[in-house]
Parts: sequence; C-alpha cells; structure tokens
Amino acid sequence: MARVMNFNAGPAALPLTALERAQAELLDFQGSGMSVMEHSHRGREYDAVHEEALALLRELLNIPVEYNILFQTGGASQQFAVVPMNLLPRTGKAAYALSGAWGEKAVAEAKSVAAMLGGEAYVSATTGTGDGKEKSYTRTPTELNDVGASYVHLTTNETIHGVQFASSPGAAFPTAHAPLVADMSSDFLWRPINVSQFGLIYAGAQKNIGPSGVTVVVIKKDLVESGRRDIPKIFQYRTHAEANSLYNTPPTFGIYLMRNVLSWLKEQGGLTAIEKVNRAKAGAIYSAISASGGFYSCPVEQSSRSMMNIVFRLGSEALEEKFVSEAKKAGMVGLKGHRALGGIRVSLYNAVLLEWAESLATFMHDFAKRNG
Amino acid sequence: MARVMNFNAGPAALPLTALERAQAELLDFQGSGMSVMEHSHRGREYDAVHEEALALLRELLNIPVEYNILFQTGGASQQFAVVPMNLLPRTGKAAYALSGAWGEKAVAEAKSVAAMLGGEAYVSATTGTGDGKEKSYTRTPTELNDVGASYVHLTTNETIHGVQFASSPGAAFPTAHAPLVADMSSDFLWRPINVSQFGLIYAGAQKNIGPSGVTVVVIKKDLVESGRRDIPKIFQYRTHAEANSLYNTPPTFGIYLMRNVLSWLKEQGGLTAIEKVNRAKAGAIYSAISASGGFYSCPVEQSSRSMMNIVFRLGSEALEEKFVSEAKKAGMVGLKGHRALGGIRVSLYNAVLLEWAESLATFMHDFAKRNG
Repeated sequence: MARVMNFNAGPAALPLTALERAQAELLDFQGSGMSVMEHSHRGREYDAVHEEALALLRELLNIPVEYNILFQTGGASQQFAVVPMNLLPRTGKAAYALSGAWGEKAVAEAKSVAAMLGGEAYVSATTGTGDGKEKSYTRTPTELNDVGASYVHLTTNETIHGVQFASSPGAAFPTAHAPLVADMSSDFLWRPINVSQFGLIYAGAQKNIGPSGVTVVVIKKDLVESGRRDIPKIFQYRTHAEANSLYNTPPTFGIYLMRNVLSWLKEQGGLTAIEKVNRAKAGAIYSAISASGGFYSCPVEQSSRSMMNIVFRLGSEALEEKFVSEAKKAGMVGLKGHRALGGIRVSLYNAVLLEWAESLATFMHDFAKRNG
Repeated sequence: MARVMNFNAGPAALPLTALERAQAELLDFQGSGMSVMEHSHRGREYDAVHEEALALLRELLNIPVEYNILFQTGGASQQFAVVPMNLLPRTGKAAYALSGAWGEKAVAEAKSVAAMLGGEAYVSATTGTGDGKEKSYTRTPTELNDVGASYVHLTTNETIHGVQFASSPGAAFPTAHAPLVADMSSDFLWRPINVSQFGLIYAGAQKNIGPSGVTVVVIKKDLVESGRRDIPKIFQYRTHAEANSLYNTPPTFGIYLMRNVLSWLKEQGGLTAIEKVNRAKAGAIYSAISASGGFYSCPVEQSSRSMMNIVFRLGSEALEEKFVSEAKKAGMVGLKGHRALGGIRVSLYNAVLLEWAESLATFMHDFAKRNG
C-alpha cells in the first residue's frame, strides 16, 4: 500500500527519507556487520551518531554555548516531575502559566513534587474556563504573577486544545523575571526561536523530531549547576550533562532516528524554510475552515491558533464521524479529535507534507459542499 | 558485509529474524501505509503489538495473574531510584545484597532516595573485597540479614564482574523474609524462573530482549497497591499498572522490536530450549578457558560463573589487546572487558548463536597455541 496521509497527533508522521535511510541500513550499519541498535553506546559507531544529533540540534536551533543539550527518556510527562525536582528549591516557588490540558498536568505533578520535597507550585496565569474536570481553553495567557518564583513554566503549544503561543513564546510574558521553562513537545523545531530567552526547553520526540522514547532537554548551564543535589542521581540534570547523556544506556535507536530526521530537516533548509511550509499547511486548513461559512468552526481565538494542531467542530458528532470515515477512505488518517474534546484535530508537524494539507483542504471544501 | 559475531555487553546482538521483520515492514506496517512508529499509541494497530508483547512475556516466563507487567523507560538505572521511591516506607528499611558493580549503584541510589524521603537502605550482604573505589567480586553472597526490611534487592547477573546466581536466584537467600526485588537486566529470560519467588523483577531490554529504551517491570499486584502515594504520579507503579503502560506515550518502536524478539524466542522453543543453547555456549567458552592450562584465567568462582557474561584475563594487557584485535579480524567483536575491570568479556545473550560461541572457543584454542 502507498503511504497514507498521516495527521496523527503523536506518535506522528516521520520524513520518508529518514525512515528509508533506517530501513536500508537496519541490518548492517555503515558496513559494521550489525544494526545500529546492536552497537555499544560507548563504541565509535554509535558515538558518531550521538554527536551528530547533538551538533544538528545546536546548529538548527542556534543553541548558544551556555546551554547543554541532553537526551532523556520518559517523555514530557516525566519532565513534569523532573523539572521541579531539579529547579524548585525547598523554600521556593514555581509559577505555571496554563493554556491547556498539558499545562494542567505539569502543574499537578509539580505540586506533588512540592509536597514531597518542599516549595510551592502555583498557577500564575490561566485561560481555562468552565467548571469540572475538563476545562476549555481558547487562547494563551498574556500576564502572570511570578513574584518570588524560581521559574515560570509554559506549554508553547497545547496539542489537545490547539492553542499555541503564536508570536515569540520567549517574549510571552514581558513582566516575568524568572527563567522560562517551556514544554515544547508539540512545536519543537517548527520554526526558529531565540533559545537565550529560555532557561530550559524540553520536548518529547514523537511529534516533530523522531519516534517516542526520546526526550530532548535544552538547559542553561547555570541552571544545571544550581539544581538540587538531594535527589536521586538519575534525575539530576547535572548527571546527564556531565556524562554527555551517556551516564546510562540511552535509547540509541531513537536517537539515531532523530539524527535522520534532523538531517532531513537541515536538507529542507532548516527552521526558516520549514516555518514557511508549516505556515502554508496551517493556512490551507484554517482557510478551509473560514471559507466554510460556519460548516467548520474552530473554537480557538485567531491570535492563539496553533500551526501544529488545528482543532475544529462540525455541526454534529454524527457528521464528525462521517468526516473522519470519508477522509480515511480518501487516504487521510489520524483526524479524530482527542477523546477529551471530541471533534476533529489535524496535526501538521514538520514531516506532514504540504500536498497532504492541500488535499485535506480540498476534501474539506468538498465535504462541506456535499453535507452543508 | 556479512553480519559479524557480536559479543557486545549491551546494547547487544538481536535475533536476525526480529530485525528482518522490522526492516521488511518499516515503511508500511501491515498494509497500514505507515511505519509502526508513526502509529498512535492509542490506535488499533499499535495496541495489538503492545498486547502481544505482554502476552508473550506472560507465557514465556509463566507469570502468574497476581503480577502486573509494566513497560517503562530509563533502564535499570532509573529503577534503582524508582524501586525505593515506591517500596521503601518512610520509616522502613531496604536490604541490598551485592555481588558486583550494578548492585553497588542500586544501593547508592536507594540511599539517596532514603535521604530524600526517609527510611534506610543498607548493604545486608556483599562479596566485595578490596579497598578503594573498585571492589573485586568473584562470587554471589549466600547469607543476609533482612530483619525488618521491606524488601531484599539482588542483581541476578553482574554484567561487569561476570557473577551470576547460578542456581535459582529466587531461592538464593533461604533465610530472607522480605519480598525479593531482582535486577535481571542482563539475564532476563535466559532460562525459566519461578516468578512467584519474587516481589518485583526489572530488566532493561538492551541485553536479552530488545533495543535500549525499554524497561520491563514484573511486579506483584499487592506491592503496586501498597506502594507510596506521596511521590510524583509518573514514578508510581500504580499509574502504569492502571493504564496498562499507556499512561503516557510508551517507546512504541522499542516495544514492537521486543515483541519481535519474544516471538522469535517462542519459536525457538521458549525458555527451556534457550537455556540449553545458552549453557552450551557458555560451556564452550569456559571449557576453552579451563583447557588452556592457565593461558586464560577466569577470576570468578566455579559456582558463581555467569552464563551470560564471561570474564577472563590473559597474561598481559598487551596480549589482551592482541586477542581483541585478532578476534576482530576473524569477525568477532565486542570482546573488550568493561573499562573498570579490563581483560576480556564475552557476552552470550539469547541472540548470540551457538556457532559464534564455538567459533570463539576455537579461536581461543588457536590463539593460546600461537601465543602460549
């Protein structure tokens, strides 16, 4: 079967060339007579991959020398705990700005860390509305109170709610004084950012840069240094910084695949080039929504609409089911909204082709015409 | 190039059929038009893989229904912290039996957890000798004091020192009353064991069952239930037990590859069959050592000699270098001893073929004759 148009929210589509490269050398990595995943993580062959992945990240994101790049596991969900374990002092405070469900999870875990180790984690800004368990989010917050906070945490793109800091997330809170800690899991590397505006950036790989099982952490060296020492060694950023992410066995094949993806991204022209493609993809879908005369409706405010995950509703759940089902027949999958929200979600990560987004936009026009 | 004979200590050789299967469907998993690693972890296609991996583990190890099987990340090194975080009560004690360097690391991390959360971790038995940082271990301990302990931790096979609980590790300490917690990273599934003798078993995948980045935890349900609740959610075993290891995105491709390896293992006849092959492989190498008239010497006592990692020395470091170098020319790699110990190490995990071990034994005879 031909490759389908994959709009999954994560794990998600990967660049075909990155996969083909992996397939070609899966049994014999560079004439070494074994797979890259059978190599020692301390051997010459894997080491070159590891170093290339680090170098590509540094080059693509223009990461200053004052920052460490770490490869971790456990995804963003583990960072929700590891960030405060390292950065929240026993008598300190951590400010969380919420624009969706992932920020909620991050602050909940930070509160459990505070209960365990001291300190306090609090919601310093939120755009959540509604009672009960499922809050509604339709925009990013603009102001917050971080007085006395050791760091300010934000989620640059909320995958479930389709809410993104559209302009520079590093300048989202002009009044903030504490270092910014950003969960960029679902919009890492979608465009250039100014890394020096952040204290720490983390991202699970399975959206924009690789398979699940790898987490990238970009952290300012002074935060590594000042991090708590009274937590287990495996959770201290300094452990992994000092060992160049080889303290224990890293997920070597995941890092290898990430290397392939980063290498592809560089060939595309890097982040400036991919941003143009990403904006064109999102533009096609948002245009289809606005041209539909209300047949499709996006609940997110214009200025906070995500370029990575576009959520919209149709007139009824039955119609939404029909949409998903007919799209699938047309070779487009992964369009069902998150189970917490329903509706439709279109994820447009870097590896999603512009022609896929255009095909989906055309399908949306036709579907609206046939069912409007 | 033909596949080399890979004696790596981990990441290590994987069964060729498991890799070929992955290669064949890397771009198109079961006609779905995408790679298994591009599938959602909540979709039908991946779910079948996840369930099959769990079912194969349960069948191969004959895991009773009273046990949960969990897929984690972070390797054994993370379990060194997560085990006491869950199982060491604030006023409790944890007994550690040491037979090598990995046990040392486990108890050190448990002590840091105790300093953080209360409780005490102590060395209840050790066979380590010598002063300074690098202790020498040549056998497993036989007695221990676990009075008042919440659990007893042991390392069933010490990869660096080549020391293994040769008879049933679940019956290693007849006087112990607390549940046994076993790090089986480097001898998981090498032969049948009686799971019900253990409270918890954990294993990083990258030795016997898959690529690095996946960790298997087999844990008795009452330990899941009684585990601490005042730690971050992501580190509570109950979180992953309740969510069937889908609380957050698991390392899907690693689990898929593990499934391929487990499927291969079942085709080989399961654990009883693989034990015979493993014993034959180790027998070939140990015979070559004992037949060498002292040219090769294994420091480990007969009854504690590992079937997975065989360590031995030659007369000089220069001779050892020559051994490694000539073996490599003969297509045998991964034989250099751990940097902490030097010498030679032969790792003979499940995927290492009997004919490789026999080739190495022949090479050892020839090398001894030429250099003796």
